[in-house]
Amino acid sequence: MSLVDALQWRYAAKRMNGKKVDASKIDSLLSAIQLSASGFGLQPYQILVIENQELKAKIRPAAYNQPQIVESSHLLVFAAWNEVTAEKINAFIQLVSETRNVNVADLKAYKDAIAGSLLSRPVEDQVKWMDKQVYLALGTALAAAAKLEIDSTPMEGFKPSEVDEILNLKEKGLHAVLMMAIGERDEASDFMVNAKKVRWPKEELFTYIV
Amino acid sequence: MSLVDALQWRYAAKRMNGKKVDASKIDSLLSAIQLSASGFGLQPYQILVIENQELKAKIRPAAYNQPQIVESSHLLVFAAWNEVTAEKINAFIQLVSETRNVNVADLKAYKDAIAGSLLSRPVEDQVKWMDKQVYLALGTALAAAAKLEIDSTPMEGFKPSEVDEILNLKEKGLHAVLMMAIGERDEASDFMVNAKKVRWPKEELFTYIV
Repeated sequence: MSLVDALQWRYAAKRMNGKKVDASKIDSLLSAIQLSASGFGLQPYQILVIENQELKAKIRPAAYNQPQIVESSHLLVFAAWNEVTAEKINAFIQLVSETRNVNVADLKAYKDAIAGSLLSRPVEDQVKWMDKQVYLALGTALAAAAKLEIDSTPMEGFKPSEVDEILNLKEKGLHAVLMMAIGERDEASDFMVNAKKVRWPKEELFTYIV
Repeated sequence: MSLVDALQWRYAAKRMNGKKVDASKIDSLLSAIQLSASGFGLQPYQILVIENQELKAKIRPAAYNQPQIVESSHLLVFAAWNEVTAEKINAFIQLVSETRNVNVADLKAYKDAIAGSLLSRPVEDQVKWMDKQVYLALGTALAAAAKLEIDSTPMEGFKPSEVDEILNLKEKGLHAVLMMAIGERDEASDFMVNAKKVRWPKEELFTYIV
């Protein structure tokens, strides 16, 4: 299946059947998320990969009782950092140094560019920027899940502060931004399973300037 | 090439060689963007697909003179709506009605859910939400470009108000959020072409809760 066909096959599943997704597919999905682009390559977020049914059941009411949360194979919670700090940038530069076998001293310009752009912003602007990087990662994740023929439901509709509390995210320096249930669509109970995909026609969505 | 391999191959090209990307590949890429997920499925944005070299040259200084803008095959400008209006929601519901062959009257609950969530927010909060949907679309676009072996450069670093002005976006009710140059990497001049990809290791990026 081409990626375009996979994206056509994809939909936001309203019901899932509880079947477990193969571990090898999960691993590929997480590899794709790990490879997602982000501003400066900083990836200012973490992803919680929740299989625990009890924990899913606790989260469900914070997400307007959506059944996919407990019917999923795994629930991914995308949580952004609460702040960009000099320490985090140093850790990232250390990672660049180790990965590329370059001296930290030779990465000073790169480090200064990141620090100059991000540390100068008020924390709420940092958070706005980080939250947007999470949306980018979700875009990667949804495309990858579709290509792997894993069903998924992206979720903006939940009470972040409740999810933060349930998962103790605050003490980890994180806050929940998006969730993504993954599993297998329940053909029998999902009324959306055969609904035609609605998209703005290309002539409205795109303007060509030749 | 699997999607994971394609994402490994992908990098933010710093230099491109000016070669044109096949029209059929461009069409597949735009189809993928069209199929991107978005909140409520609303896709509150438009994408300008710019081949015109004169226009690219005008945009370049607004993006810190990044050479890929003029070296690209196409420059995509992702522009979000400036406001969510009742008219826009009506047009979307009309599209749902036509696509799924359902009476508009039977879509009232769906329409009320969208309107209730979005029209009640101050315009700046609407814009914040719409800008995030653009990041999601960029995630789809970068994954699709990689799978099609199209090189790309995602760009946050530009002066949106200048790009808006050059492209007359304000009078179209739009504002530039992100750009994406697509083309072919210039192996000879891009110093990043062989740089190892830097990513947080899986054990830092993911927390498994079994």
